[in-house]
Amino acid sequence: MFNPFFKNYGPFKISDLLKIIKLEGIKLKSDEEIIDIKDLNTADKKHITFYHSKKYKDAANRTKASFCITYDNLQKDLPITCTPLIVKNVLVSTSMITAKFYPTSILDEYDNTVKLSHETKYKNKVKFGKNVLIGENVSIGINCSIGHNSIIEKNVKIGSNCSIGSNVIIRNCLLHNNIKILDNCVIGKHGFGFFPNKDNNLRYPHIGVVIIEDNCEIGCGSTIDRGSMSNTVIGKNAYLDNQIHIAHNVKIGKNSIIAGQVGIAGSSVLGENVKIGGQAGISGHLKIGNNVEIGGGSGVIKDIPDNSKVMGYPAKNIRVFLKENR
Amino acid sequence: MFNPFFKNYGPFKISDLLKIIKLEGIKLKSDEEIIDIKDLNTADKKHITFYHSKKYKDAANRTKASFCITYDNLQKDLPITCTPLIVKNVLVSTSMITAKFYPTSILDEYDNTVKLSHETKYKNKVKFGKNVLIGENVSIGINCSIGHNSIIEKNVKIGSNCSIGSNVIIRNCLLHNNIKILDNCVIGKHGFGFFPNKDNNLRYPHIGVVIIEDNCEIGCGSTIDRGSMSNTVIGKNAYLDNQIHIAHNVKIGKNSIIAGQVGIAGSSVLGENVKIGGQAGISGHLKIGNNVEIGGGSGVIKDIPDNSKVMGYPAKNIRVFLKENR
Amino acid sequence: MFNPFFKNYGPFKISDLLKIIKLEGIKLKSDEEIIDIKDLNTADKKHITFYHSKKYKDAANRTKASFCITYDNLQKDLPITCTPLIVKNVLVSTSMITAKFYPTSILDEYDNTVKLSHETKYKNKVKFGKNVLIGENVSIGINCSIGHNSIIEKNVKIGSNCSIGSNVIIRNCLLHNNIKILDNCVIGKHGFGFFPNKDNNLRYPHIGVVIIEDNCEIGCGSTIDRGSMSNTVIGKNAYLDNQIHIAHNVKIGKNSIIAGQVGIAGSSVLGENVKIGGQAGISGHLKIGNNVEIGGGSGVIKDIPDNSKVMGYPAKNIRVFLKENR
Repeated sequence: MFNPFFKNYGPFKISDLLKIIKLEGIKLKSDEEIIDIKDLNTADKKHITFYHSKKYKDAANRTKASFCITYDNLQKDLPITCTPLIVKNVLVSTSMITAKFYPTSILDEYDNTVKLSHETKYKNKVKFGKNVLIGENVSIGINCSIGHNSIIEKNVKIGSNCSIGSNVIIRNCLLHNNIKILDNCVIGKHGFGFFPNKDNNLRYPHIGVVIIEDNCEIGCGSTIDRGSMSNTVIGKNAYLDNQIHIAHNVKIGKNSIIAGQVGIAGSSVLGENVKIGGQAGISGHLKIGNNVEIGGGSGVIKDIPDNSKVMGYPAKNIRVFLKENR
Repeated sequence: MFNPFFKNYGPFKISDLLKIIKLEGIKLKSDEEIIDIKDLNTADKKHITFYHSKKYKDAANRTKASFCITYDNLQKDLPITCTPLIVKNVLVSTSMITAKFYPTSILDEYDNTVKLSHETKYKNKVKFGKNVLIGENVSIGINCSIGHNSIIEKNVKIGSNCSIGSNVIIRNCLLHNNIKILDNCVIGKHGFGFFPNKDNNLRYPHIGVVIIEDNCEIGCGSTIDRGSMSNTVIGKNAYLDNQIHIAHNVKIGKNSIIAGQVGIAGSSVLGENVKIGGQAGISGHLKIGNNVEIGGGSGVIKDIPDNSKVMGYPAKNIRVFLKENR
Repeated sequence: MFNPFFKNYGPFKISDLLKIIKLEGIKLKSDEEIIDIKDLNTADKKHITFYHSKKYKDAANRTKASFCITYDNLQKDLPITCTPLIVKNVLVSTSMITAKFYPTSILDEYDNTVKLSHETKYKNKVKFGKNVLIGENVSIGINCSIGHNSIIEKNVKIGSNCSIGSNVIIRNCLLHNNIKILDNCVIGKHGFGFFPNKDNNLRYPHIGVVIIEDNCEIGCGSTIDRGSMSNTVIGKNAYLDNQIHIAHNVKIGKNSIIAGQVGIAGSSVLGENVKIGGQAGISGHLKIGNNVEIGGGSGVIKDIPDNSKVMGYPAKNIRVFLKENR
């Protein structure tokens, strides 16, 4: 995953990591350097990983990580090459360690590297409105315009022929070519992902980005959150109307058309050429096939196969819905 | 329709228009000047029009247009005074020609004529916040205030006793008197109207405006899109709560009350004194009568007669709905 | 109620108040000074109150107010110490008198006391983005950051370790510690409360505030309206996702989690540890218990007891809902 946005602040000595999760008492053969935190599948030697549910037993069996945050009753599933770190709450401890590696992916404070557009190298190359702020290391293609008061935060890449409206905020985002982002959108903030924790929830890092492919249009006041471990992707020529919310890790297929006030919850994946009526909602972690049509106001709570037309709450075959409600 | 916003860039020679839609091979008696593009009913001599469906046969029979973009099998319905222009996709070709006449109604780029309020003739006549931007030829009545960072784009007319909040964007809009527009609204952008086209949708022009009549209030974060061929109208003393979306061509009758997060899809017409509960949605192209009450969360998918109370999804008589759901 | 925001412009002579509601003809023993307007229960001597429905007969019997705006047929319920003021529409007359005492709580115009952050005493104490505006008498704790173009209006109190995003507007609000307000939120505007009145609705004052307790996070583009007579309260460690609307007087209990595009109508009270799925709506004046879970897309139209899980529109027991919709 190409990702210019989130710096890995590691490596860290394992002894320093153990202090964070209150395991400083553990005896270590050597005080190794740990270079990253990854999930069970992608972790390698010198990585730390986490294992919190039997569901992932197979992955646990095969992990290459050197250390694994886990529960007492799960440690037996880990290979001998992986040292178990037994904690009370795996997800909370994991969030603490990931925060150590990727602190800037949690805080999401405003970008303090920005300059007014006329102080940047793009001053004569991009059509800028008044009071436009551009962060460090932003790149912008030819024939672009960016409206008044908009903020393009550091490292964002904007392709050619893009038109950004006014009062727009873009961060942690890769925009391809010929894209329109209308006024008041917020693109690329972290998702609504955290570990609930009495009186003080714990945010985990969102190190994914938002990718918007060629020819898309994003309506006014929409919010598109970046991914946590994977990316949020808006496919080629997808058109989104006003006040839409796209949560973290969502993928929208190309040529899709999404009407106003639709919301798509985290990690759902939509196929190509999907059409969604106004105010419809799609639950998280679902798979919506190609050429699916979802009626306005629908609430989709399960996967929808290719070429289906659905409507209702919960959404069902549209003909059945309309017949039942005649 | 009074419309100071969209300049007709015509007339154009018919030979130039034919090139755009790849019909340059057609033989013409003379290379006439075409002054506008209109629908079948309103088109006159020296206008170009379009005819894409049998539904409009009567209007096609009577059109006064000199040229008509149409399909091979429909050309027989046109009068002898109207030269048919046979294309593969009437709507796509129409969007190309209208884009030629009204290019500024498609792009919707930010207004680059704006100046800071203290550089305008209104600097001592209007109560301005900081960093307010005012476009060319804007007019503002007496006793108005406009909050920080708001943008009033060119040619907008604001009546007297109006209060505009902060971070508001207004374009292509006629505001009457005694109106409140609260923070973060976007009023007057083009609607979500375009011709779907594989990998590269085609926008058609929106040359309508938004008209907001006396005594209205529009809540924070609301979006009101301008019309495509007709106007979007918010009737006298209509009150809209926060985060409402009003799509293009919608008309809202006077004294209506619309609660938060309601969405009204394109071209629906609401009567007077309509009350709509929070999060309700109204599909496009519907007619909602006078004195109608729509319960919160409802999804209205058909016309509603005067004096009805409805609720549910799809919306039905409210007593029936509540009885069925006791 | 601690409230630094709304100045009481009284006292006023009762003769001046009577002119406002067109009762100047009434004979008075003396032209007393009236110091405030309150409801029947909290009003004291030298206060004016209002009584418009039999429902409040007991409170009317006991009121200590010196004057009461009421109807002819209700005046008999008032004690002899309270002079009845008979009008045609009690709520309209009440709104006129309250507007006299609290004019700044109605207009909600932008704050014209703001200065750029670097002109304030906080210039070296807070991490400010560009073009941040700070009103008179704002207080900000240690270790806070406020993003670009944000506006903190007069008298707002911000605790320590707070992070405010960009394009945020905060007024009439008390923020405790360790709070995150994400981009484009509008916090503290008046609620959608007014007296419908043909061709010219009458707003009544909103003299409540918004209180956000420790450790909360408020997502992008959310709106939280301040209370009318009581406050709007977001309890400790409540997390709200993007595009949420919280209406006036709502209370949200601590440790609650509210997903994107949820709307909560005026005066509803939610217990602790409530979880609400995306796009759900809650009607006004309801009581939602502790540990309640509300499924995404639900429409809640009645009270929900502690520890319930509901879903549907209208919301019912979630197991029943899922069974009926299998």
